[in-house]
Amino acid sequence: MADLIARKILEAAAGLPELVRARAPRVHCLTNHAAAALTANMLLAVGAIPSLTDHPDEMPDFIGGADALMVNLGTPDSARVTAVEMAIEIAKAAGKPWVLDPVMCERGAARLRWSKACLGAGPSLIRLNQAEADALGLDLAGAETRAPLIALTGAEDRVIGMERSTASIGNGHPLMAKVTAIGCGLSAVLAAYLAVSEDAFTGVVAGLLAFGIAGEDAGERVEGPGGFPAALLDRLYRITAADILEKGKLTCAN
Amino acid sequence: MADLIARKILEAAAGLPELVRARAPRVHCLTNHAAAALTANMLLAVGAIPSLTDHPDEMPDFIGGADALMVNLGTPDSARVTAVEMAIEIAKAAGKPWVLDPVMCERGAARLRWSKACLGAGPSLIRLNQAEADALGLDLAGAETRAPLIALTGAEDRVIGMERSTASIGNGHPLMAKVTAIGCGLSAVLAAYLAVSEDAFTGVVAGLLAFGIAGEDAGERVEGPGGFPAALLDRLYRITAADILEKGKLTCAN
Amino acid sequence: MADLIARKILEAAAGLPELVRARAPRVHCLTNHAAAALTANMLLAVGAIPSLTDHPDEMPDFIGGADALMVNLGTPDSARVTAVEMAIEIAKAAGKPWVLDPVMCERGAARLRWSKACLGAGPSLIRLNQAEADALGLDLAGAETRAPLIALTGAEDRVIGMERSTASIGNGHPLMAKVTAIGCGLSAVLAAYLAVSEDAFTGVVAGLLAFGIAGEDAGERVEGPGGFPAALLDRLYRITAADILEKGKLTCAN
Repeated sequence: MADLIARKILEAAAGLPELVRARAPRVHCLTNHAAAALTANMLLAVGAIPSLTDHPDEMPDFIGGADALMVNLGTPDSARVTAVEMAIEIAKAAGKPWVLDPVMCERGAARLRWSKACLGAGPSLIRLNQAEADALGLDLAGAETRAPLIALTGAEDRVIGMERSTASIGNGHPLMAKVTAIGCGLSAVLAAYLAVSEDAFTGVVAGLLAFGIAGEDAGERVEGPGGFPAALLDRLYRITAADILEKGKLTCAN
Repeated sequence: MADLIARKILEAAAGLPELVRARAPRVHCLTNHAAAALTANMLLAVGAIPSLTDHPDEMPDFIGGADALMVNLGTPDSARVTAVEMAIEIAKAAGKPWVLDPVMCERGAARLRWSKACLGAGPSLIRLNQAEADALGLDLAGAETRAPLIALTGAEDRVIGMERSTASIGNGHPLMAKVTAIGCGLSAVLAAYLAVSEDAFTGVVAGLLAFGIAGEDAGERVEGPGGFPAALLDRLYRITAADILEKGKLTCAN
Repeated sequence: MADLIARKILEAAAGLPELVRARAPRVHCLTNHAAAALTANMLLAVGAIPSLTDHPDEMPDFIGGADALMVNLGTPDSARVTAVEMAIEIAKAAGKPWVLDPVMCERGAARLRWSKACLGAGPSLIRLNQAEADALGLDLAGAETRAPLIALTGAEDRVIGMERSTASIGNGHPLMAKVTAIGCGLSAVLAAYLAVSEDAFTGVVAGLLAFGIAGEDAGERVEGPGGFPAALLDRLYRITAADILEKGKLTCAN
């Protein structure tokens, strides 16, 4: 039964890389300095269109013109804190998907407080690692109702949906933890996938599969972390339905 | 006649890559977060010396010590807005060339207003794409007098000068649109070329030729957008007069 | 005698790349926009854990949780100026090593003033080039007492310690001067080495040897500045004790 569900999700997910390219969703990213360039390049590589301004005055126009929003809480400054609050409000009012990435929220009280406030605003998806989930006290068993989707990434990735449905993605490569902003960029890619997906759970699974397969293939082609980002982008640029179907390591439980 | 003019400009342009290396002009860049590193690396690759501070207090010394200025309006913040205003004033007072890159000015009212204000200050060159030119209502037929030079970049690049003289550059590669900040970096490279050129029109044509040829060659050597920036920098680093003369696709009209 | 000292330091230095990997020190970096991503990637490549926030409110937690601090004065803004002051005070109170990188302090009066104030706060190490050292009026003969260690980098690197002990490292590659933020990243790597070293002088020498050897090997493998950072990171990722012992070009004087 679980195998059958996994197969059905895999087949639905397989169509999404091409759909992202066809729709070219605009994804606005409010993110940290170190992640800005790689995040924009990841969005371009999957066929989406990035924008990055964090000036509060520009939020109405840029969020208004975007198809999805990604909020990453690294290297905050006071203008970005204001911009994030405005951007979330505008995205929610317009019913646009938005992704929260509470990067390093376990490292500081101010960061954790800010992460909780953003989580309270009800993101479509929260993408984080185990240490961040622990710090936030996130219920990883899955909520019954109204919880955001959770993408818990690590050696194995898990997607936790409503009514305790979960999926595990076994693709990826250890070098992904040896390059800065890989997770930040993934959060933006997931926002692009959410922007074009009818079913959010499938969209997130598809994004993680595409990213994990690209990372796996890239990791096998390079000599170390230096060459990894370029190889990952090149692979994301060409990811196909066949890649998802043939290489996707997906298991499901409900 | 047009062919003869093109040949003469091509010959004049061919000497400029080496002149940039010999003079090593200092180019100060006020630019967005995502573009900072690649822009600095492009300037280093062509033989120029970048600086990037956007602290208003540092404008007098850094613009004073620079040979050219590049202003890119991405990811603005209030300090940078102030710095831009000061930097333009200092550059103009000292007669130094400055380039305006009104990135994504078609996406928001605040950005467009700011772009118009900068354009009103009279840049030596405005580098932009068609959507940005449309938003600014730029007269692409060329002004009779006192207009800034226009470098309109896209699948084909056009330089529009005074008295309606125009040049078209057919070099380039589609991957240039698949990597963030390529256009931003080009604007800085054009500032470096302007800094050493006796004739501004020739300088801009030369910069676009060097950049387009480097991009063309780089695009043919890589597998996707990931490997593109490194290949572009490597190619820019070695661009020669012979490259310009042999590979430059230049047509002129007057 | 000097040869014997150099050999002893080389042998002590050889163990440090592995010690950095084993201890995985946390290095907090307050640095410029253009350097953020490459600096974080260099730290990850040598086995350290980077953090980058420059929000003053986050300094107590992030410096409190770090093993070393690196302060680079590029692209300053008013919040970072405040954060730097707080970070230095916290690091000093906790006896944590901190590295000062007064990048381009010769280019402006405000930068130079700020650099002097930071230098006056007594860094464990100041990493800079000749032009910066001249602007600061640094005594490169070595102070008798209480001076910070000095790492003067260029075609040849020199470490100047207390009681006029000095070491020269002849490894490196000219392409290191053709890529932005290489020196900024080196300063962070030296902070990681200081974090795990019993003897600071040996730690700095070890970091410069590892970096110089990696740079040398990387430079020989690439075609230009574009491919250099990736090759440098790949090489740093695998640098061994044998590399230091076999390739290290170290001379000492006292």
